[in-house]
Amino acid sequence: MNTTAKNEQNTIFSQGDKANPDYFTGNAWLNLLVNESEFNSVIGNVTFEAGARNNWHTHPGGQILIVTDGTGYYQEKDKPIQLIQRGDVVKIPADVKHWHGASVDSPLTHIAITASTPKGAVDWLERVTDEEYNSYKE
Amino acid sequence: MNTTAKNEQNTIFSQGDKANPDYFTGNAWLNLLVNESEFNSVIGNVTFEAGARNNWHTHPGGQILIVTDGTGYYQEKDKPIQLIQRGDVVKIPADVKHWHGASVDSPLTHIAITASTPKGAVDWLERVTDEEYNSYKE
Repeated sequence: MNTTAKNEQNTIFSQGDKANPDYFTGNAWLNLLVNESEFNSVIGNVTFEAGARNNWHTHPGGQILIVTDGTGYYQEKDKPIQLIQRGDVVKIPADVKHWHGASVDSPLTHIAITASTPKGAVDWLERVTDEEYNSYKE
Repeated sequence: MNTTAKNEQNTIFSQGDKANPDYFTGNAWLNLLVNESEFNSVIGNVTFEAGARNNWHTHPGGQILIVTDGTGYYQEKDKPIQLIQRGDVVKIPADVKHWHGASVDSPLTHIAITASTPKGAVDWLERVTDEEYNSYKE
């Protein structure tokens, strides 16, 4: 399986830096596009290798994900995993506990638009276990 | 010149609806992705045919453009036109008078992230004249 070639095919941005391993399981990269306070949001391009995902987390001001390539997973607490793919827009309300990442066999690239608030932009929680990650049902 | 084929090659979103001709010169389309008040921003995918552009305008809370395909122009009042292309991120501060659109010979697709404020998201002004549009110098 040549996931690298697949991922590069439609890449708009360079991968950027390795994502913080405290908050990500597997290999993921972050290209920070906007972080100026005057725009009241943090915008980044995030690339996940197949199998990679971030920890459970919440956003005090919510978050929008725009999937630009690949196939991945999005899960809110106490709900089943949803499949997400190129062209999907995920609207995550404030304070909803969730995680996102690549699917088992495909990388995922998304733009993440996160509101900056007086309480910050994100609160990181515990890792997504393999059991949780592998619970996707078609 | 087959601009349609070029434009469709890397399209992430469908074109959506024809943009309001009161505020656009030439053919442009808007696919509104996010417009819920809880996210405090309006996010749309905008596609411009070669030669098309929007009117001069300002944003009370600023705007971010993420260019996902093609080549176009961005101009702030009293400055020269800047060439923008796939992978560019344009950061437009609040109240800066500007316009954007496709270049003379290529379509342009960008995601526009516009802050919603108590004063609204956009104030439309006069059309960009052909003389202004054709003032780009390499």
